[in-house]
Amino acid sequence: MTQMLPSAAVLGARAFAALAGLNRFSDEPGKLTRLYLSPAHRQAAEWVKGAMEVAGLSAFIDAAGSVQGRRDGAAAGHPSVMIGSHIDTVKDGGRFDGNLGVVAGILVAQALRDAGITLPFPLEVVAFGDEENVRFPTHLSTSEALAGRYDPAWLDGRDADGVKLSDALVAFGGNPAGIPALARKPGSIRAYLELHIEQGPVLEAENEPVGIVTTINAQSRARVRITGEAGHAGTVPMALRKDALTAAAEMALALEAIAGSHELAVGTVGVFRPNPGATNVVPGAVEFTIDFRAPKNETLASMETAIRARFAEIATRRGVGLDIVPYARAEAVPMDPALQEALAAGVTKTGSNLATRRLPSGAGHDAMSMAAVAPAAMLFVRNEKGISHSPLENMTEADAGIAIRVMLETILELAERSK
Amino acid sequence: MTQMLPSAAVLGARAFAALAGLNRFSDEPGKLTRLYLSPAHRQAAEWVKGAMEVAGLSAFIDAAGSVQGRRDGAAAGHPSVMIGSHIDTVKDGGRFDGNLGVVAGILVAQALRDAGITLPFPLEVVAFGDEENVRFPTHLSTSEALAGRYDPAWLDGRDADGVKLSDALVAFGGNPAGIPALARKPGSIRAYLELHIEQGPVLEAENEPVGIVTTINAQSRARVRITGEAGHAGTVPMALRKDALTAAAEMALALEAIAGSHELAVGTVGVFRPNPGATNVVPGAVEFTIDFRAPKNETLASMETAIRARFAEIATRRGVGLDIVPYARAEAVPMDPALQEALAAGVTKTGSNLATRRLPSGAGHDAMSMAAVAPAAMLFVRNEKGISHSPLENMTEADAGIAIRVMLETILELAERSK
Repeated sequence: MTQMLPSAAVLGARAFAALAGLNRFSDEPGKLTRLYLSPAHRQAAEWVKGAMEVAGLSAFIDAAGSVQGRRDGAAAGHPSVMIGSHIDTVKDGGRFDGNLGVVAGILVAQALRDAGITLPFPLEVVAFGDEENVRFPTHLSTSEALAGRYDPAWLDGRDADGVKLSDALVAFGGNPAGIPALARKPGSIRAYLELHIEQGPVLEAENEPVGIVTTINAQSRARVRITGEAGHAGTVPMALRKDALTAAAEMALALEAIAGSHELAVGTVGVFRPNPGATNVVPGAVEFTIDFRAPKNETLASMETAIRARFAEIATRRGVGLDIVPYARAEAVPMDPALQEALAAGVTKTGSNLATRRLPSGAGHDAMSMAAVAPAAMLFVRNEKGISHSPLENMTEADAGIAIRVMLETILELAERSK
Repeated sequence: MTQMLPSAAVLGARAFAALAGLNRFSDEPGKLTRLYLSPAHRQAAEWVKGAMEVAGLSAFIDAAGSVQGRRDGAAAGHPSVMIGSHIDTVKDGGRFDGNLGVVAGILVAQALRDAGITLPFPLEVVAFGDEENVRFPTHLSTSEALAGRYDPAWLDGRDADGVKLSDALVAFGGNPAGIPALARKPGSIRAYLELHIEQGPVLEAENEPVGIVTTINAQSRARVRITGEAGHAGTVPMALRKDALTAAAEMALALEAIAGSHELAVGTVGVFRPNPGATNVVPGAVEFTIDFRAPKNETLASMETAIRARFAEIATRRGVGLDIVPYARAEAVPMDPALQEALAAGVTKTGSNLATRRLPSGAGHDAMSMAAVAPAAMLFVRNEKGISHSPLENMTEADAGIAIRVMLETILELAERSK
């Protein structure tokens, strides 16, 4: 029956056309900015609902603002297969981040309907709305709702204008009281699959159009404060200095070396603020952030031990104060091995020349939430320059088509396995 | 005749009382802020003029805003000995920086007059007004006027409010057209002596109340821009990064090492701005400043060569762009050897237990300008915590008294040498 399905090239063209439609909805003219529960989010949700209905799914916008579409399977009682991603964006974001995964789900459903294929299981497509964590102090709240892990305290969170999430949700047309009922029962979802643009340069560097995600990396963040002694840049001899900046610089290099010595780990100093920050003053204090990630929790823990030991050694040797305040931590979320295999089968069926490249995800995704209630797996699509969260984010139509075709083949592979 | 002179303890008490009077004049309530040509500067200048007159000097406020006081010597025709420093301050500055040197000159003149001593040479005391380079884009303009190096273009410089220096000078009561006539003839000043609080911790660390300045260090400043590649902190593998921040951190440590390997040299990164400066983004660019100083021009040149070579090596190895833009450079200004000896004699006469400690000055002073037209030397006074340009700047009354007594003994030493 595969002959009746659209080619990768056709799927790529359909995806780009669909994205052009969906990405008209923005909170900022000339940019793609679509924050959770904004007017543009509502318009985009309506567009997605319409597109789902045209693709043969019954659809509704749920209590938390996600769009849920569904087509029943051949027989009742089977757990569903769900394809999902998100339609919120960062401020001035890229065209593909999240949106492509939602469009992919709709195009897969449409292709199956058009080919007259009825799956043995229900097919669901979901467009989550709060993945980017930009507007409210939440994280993945809309997928956490389906996972049954929604924290009611999130409803009291406020945006930069002081608007409460619960009020914004009501204004959007959602229903705070209905959120608990969104929780799916364990066992009711057989597979959660998410297609997403890679937010880094790995597939690009290896010249592969798609990659299978092995795990969503464990992650830790901390604010670090170094307290030295400010002084005149001309008059304090080097031997008498307690320069907070050079101490912090040595720590940034230590973090880089520690990350580089652990497989697939990363470590970044992104914020770095010397005080007072004047040309002719030896900095008396520096505040900087560290962000480090690894595929395994044990690796992250061993990195943290190494970081603390090295930073303490540097601070002691240089006679400066050191204060490390961790403020965010996420455990690693391994993707389901059987679903990874199903994706690999989908890749191979899509093209015998395609490698089944595996890679961890350094960024968080709705699949992290869904993995709490269902087997979950992700497919990454090559990012042309490795750039994301930027209008420069890009991919080829050909790669988008290959990836959607892989999703289609993977759904058919799961159908085969149901026999 | 030395018996008739006030003791160090008395001079210290007089100095602290005088500073309490002079430092009432501030542009900001509760802080000591006295910018060039401000109302507080005018009030302070009037106070200094009055204090000079009470001390037996004839005094006037000159065309550039400096206060000049003078008492003739025993016979006409001798070149003068000048004691000077400045009465402008940084914003929220310290009590001693500049002001103590002016007060010292007045107290020396007063002590000599009270003791009935007529020097063989004229004694001049000068309170410069533009040493800190805070309000206008000038540097030492009031002492440069006496040195005959005033650049008329400085009159067109503007402050942060857009006020032209020439207009501010007229409003102050000065006279732009009269500045050229302020230039002293070479040979007309036999010695320029400046007492100044040390703006670093050297004397404090060595437990010496005073030190003789050997040279005012050569200095170079540059802005450095590193251009790497911004990326997601979670998704760009370490091996594919071009992290501008870790490149800049390595350069900051290289500068520190280069400065540490040259005798009496210093090197500082004071400004350090990563872009975009977000926790979860690998910095794509960093701008930082370097400031390095050394007692000899050759040392500064060899540091600069080493800095350029090391920075280039780091940039090449890390694949980042490097742009170094020097924007300020000053040659070393050696202090006059004979005047250093006269100061050493003054130290020894003040107390046989006092060491004649020599040290370079890492900061600029009016003595740099005056050295262009006269032999110049400086005496540093111990800074209690090495802190300057801050309300925390401090010294003991005892140290101030010792230093002023050294100035008095040095003037008498120069008088001896005139016989």
